[in-house]
Amino acid sequence: MKRVDNYKKKIVKLSKNKKTIFVLSIPQFFKKKVTNSLLLINSGKIIYTVRKKELPNYGVFDEKRYFSSYDGKRNIFKYKNSKIKFLICEDMWADDFFKKKNKQTVDLLIIINASPFEVGKFELRKKLASKRARFYKSQLVYLNLVGSQDDLIFDGGSFVMNTSGKIILQKQFFSDSEKIVDLNIKHKAEKKNKVSDLEHLYKALMIGLKNYFKKNNFSSVTLGLSGGVDSALTLSIVADCLDKKKINSFFLPSLFTSNESRVDAFNLSKRLNLETTELSIENLRKNILQELKLVFKKTKHGITEENIQSRIRGLLLMALSNKFNSLLITTGNKSELSVGYSTLYGDMCGGYSLLKDIYKTKVFELCKWRNNNYADDFLIKKLNVIPEEIINKEPSAELKFNQKDSDSLPKYETLDNILELLIDKNQGIEFIVKQGFPKKTVMKIWDLIKKSEFKRYQSAIGPKVSGMSLSADRRFPLINKFRL
Amino acid sequence: MKRVDNYKKKIVKLSKNKKTIFVLSIPQFFKKKVTNSLLLINSGKIIYTVRKKELPNYGVFDEKRYFSSYDGKRNIFKYKNSKIKFLICEDMWADDFFKKKNKQTVDLLIIINASPFEVGKFELRKKLASKRARFYKSQLVYLNLVGSQDDLIFDGGSFVMNTSGKIILQKQFFSDSEKIVDLNIKHKAEKKNKVSDLEHLYKALMIGLKNYFKKNNFSSVTLGLSGGVDSALTLSIVADCLDKKKINSFFLPSLFTSNESRVDAFNLSKRLNLETTELSIENLRKNILQELKLVFKKTKHGITEENIQSRIRGLLLMALSNKFNSLLITTGNKSELSVGYSTLYGDMCGGYSLLKDIYKTKVFELCKWRNNNYADDFLIKKLNVIPEEIINKEPSAELKFNQKDSDSLPKYETLDNILELLIDKNQGIEFIVKQGFPKKTVMKIWDLIKKSEFKRYQSAIGPKVSGMSLSADRRFPLINKFRL
Repeated sequence: MKRVDNYKKKIVKLSKNKKTIFVLSIPQFFKKKVTNSLLLINSGKIIYTVRKKELPNYGVFDEKRYFSSYDGKRNIFKYKNSKIKFLICEDMWADDFFKKKNKQTVDLLIIINASPFEVGKFELRKKLASKRARFYKSQLVYLNLVGSQDDLIFDGGSFVMNTSGKIILQKQFFSDSEKIVDLNIKHKAEKKNKVSDLEHLYKALMIGLKNYFKKNNFSSVTLGLSGGVDSALTLSIVADCLDKKKINSFFLPSLFTSNESRVDAFNLSKRLNLETTELSIENLRKNILQELKLVFKKTKHGITEENIQSRIRGLLLMALSNKFNSLLITTGNKSELSVGYSTLYGDMCGGYSLLKDIYKTKVFELCKWRNNNYADDFLIKKLNVIPEEIINKEPSAELKFNQKDSDSLPKYETLDNILELLIDKNQGIEFIVKQGFPKKTVMKIWDLIKKSEFKRYQSAIGPKVSGMSLSADRRFPLINKFRL
Repeated sequence: MKRVDNYKKKIVKLSKNKKTIFVLSIPQFFKKKVTNSLLLINSGKIIYTVRKKELPNYGVFDEKRYFSSYDGKRNIFKYKNSKIKFLICEDMWADDFFKKKNKQTVDLLIIINASPFEVGKFELRKKLASKRARFYKSQLVYLNLVGSQDDLIFDGGSFVMNTSGKIILQKQFFSDSEKIVDLNIKHKAEKKNKVSDLEHLYKALMIGLKNYFKKNNFSSVTLGLSGGVDSALTLSIVADCLDKKKINSFFLPSLFTSNESRVDAFNLSKRLNLETTELSIENLRKNILQELKLVFKKTKHGITEENIQSRIRGLLLMALSNKFNSLLITTGNKSELSVGYSTLYGDMCGGYSLLKDIYKTKVFELCKWRNNNYADDFLIKKLNVIPEEIINKEPSAELKFNQKDSDSLPKYETLDNILELLIDKNQGIEFIVKQGFPKKTVMKIWDLIKKSEFKRYQSAIGPKVSGMSLSADRRFPLINKFRL
């Protein structure tokens, strides 16, 4: 708080003899408590302060832990002939400022936001902002942060609305931008440019990764390719946002790895202009089983032995990560992680879990989208970067011969539908069964979710892109022997 | 909530034709919001309800996320000629019920609690309860939960106070108990039985482990012994609370393991009546370095190679854990974990981190305490279970020849003092330097803490025993390039 205050003073000083009004958003003490505040600074003075009232304390938000709500008087800021009302993020979402009794005459609403990205969130923001503009019959400026912090992605996409709640200016997503708007002129509503959810999602993953990589000073990224669809999508996202010199990819086959997987993995990396190194884990697999032979005598070969392969891969990739200050990216998806179909300290090894919030069915959709699209800011400017074979084959962990994911799990379409209801929609068993899913399947999945809570507890951080990610917003006990 | 309601109805039904008044504490809907409620049930009816007002939202508490505060009228419960005031946990800690204007005539205060254990917490409870009893000139019954949930330990130790705030009945800690007190008789204050902090702490770790083990249906525990003091303390706690048939201990030496470590580890396990299995990691270490030779060419042998040893141990122990449905206990302490002096997916492997909230200097104290004490409920009823050699030798990770912890870290006494100020007391650099610690050392430690945030993010859960554990109460960003 001391340092924040020092910087505030510096900015105030810099504003001397400037006509511009600067907006600064910082935590500020008020009556000995910390409030989330917005300051207007002009000509070496703070000319206006507003403090946040609504403190979100759900999902990823814990604001009641850190901030105090300000529920006092709020003056309208007057600038020339305009009355401007400033709101801070959640203040727009709660109804309090939009009740008849609290209505003021306002020419312009300015709302500053650090609104975390979720698929479909932009439509929600737009709808609500429109309602708020119409309520006050006021123009509205919605300003949103761009960047990321840990698991949260801020997608930008700031906009200006007219008094009828129509967008008259829409700025781009995922990058900084600057624009001067003269609000004294009557603007026409912009033509609707519906954002593609898949494009948005792909770009969100790119910005999340790029920021995490940069802000933590890594020299390169490392990842293991299996020939499957998760590592393929991961590599394509990586290649679209990082220079090829910064990408180290490895193929780590065992006895159970099919030749198709090898061909697919190398084909993929070739299409992305990358070189992949092969490191067989077969000798190590045999050596480890040999070392454990005595303590494992009389036991049946099974999942333990399968996990060992995954853990050798984790061990080798982490050695590479350590040696070269390289960020190991773990490639598991939300479906696997939800039901614990992943090996702790094995394929779960890594500093960043890029697909942590992406269900398997969405992984396929993103692959197909990427094969048919790229954007100006992608480093790989070509289509069909992911071989069709990878998308079309049946998913397998290849930890034993002829293994298919569908041996132990329902098919992904069903699994993902049920997971979305259980996790994202927080629905109970009864409700889900009523949607037409077999009770036995739903119960089994719910059981798998609860049993694998300890794995997710130790899982790497990854970008939140849905309403209920497996990072900061879902908080579930490890001891959970209750029933739904 | 539906299921809670069903059980409530069953209990109400069971109370028919019974004179006893049952106290039930459950979440209850009130005006469509969930409140933390206490019900009195008698003769098939709910005869009284009180709802929690004060919702803690700091440290490990997130109650504002789940509960609504009840700030309405509170009737006193009248029983025969007595006026009884019920409070729920935090209600006693906040001052609101203890302001002159809110004072009522009360004969008895009953406070129900799920108050998480911390060293020294009992003294705080007692002090505050005494103040509250004296304020109302009322007798006071303080009831506390016994058991654990995830990282939280509930230590029991319920008590009754007279109107002068003196304890007239003190129940034991860490186990259920039952006692009838006639409050119409005048009781003498109990003689002071000051609780030993170290005994309390040791028992808290025992109950935490025992509960986690049992509630998650494990068949056994597995742990690796290094010959060092952390794994020694861990094993002694394990042996004091679990049957020897349920304990699998392993010694996993490499080229760099000293013979002293072997002697000490086996001596320890002998003293605890256990058998330890030796599994050398030396062949695997060589094999792995061989496999990596090509990709590591031209690099210097260093920390990466040291970590590999730790990760082979993790891999083998996890294989044993998987194979035998055994809870792997990781033995790292709070000092190591705070500065990242631990290998992710190596010695950090495990489902339960028993010493996660115990600084190294406290590990030594606990070892010494245990060597001089045991209690009735310890399975190993002898002293000196931890060989003096283990306590007296200089700490080393033994990942290279002649390595000492003090090569890379300040001596533990200094380190722990600084860590306690930075982490537990949440103090700034300036303040700590004023306490007489060299600025360079403090800055280095703060830097190590921030750099290792990603490791703690993926660390196993462990019992909270201090005011600021590294599990649920300390929430710190992984991207943290700000300065203190």
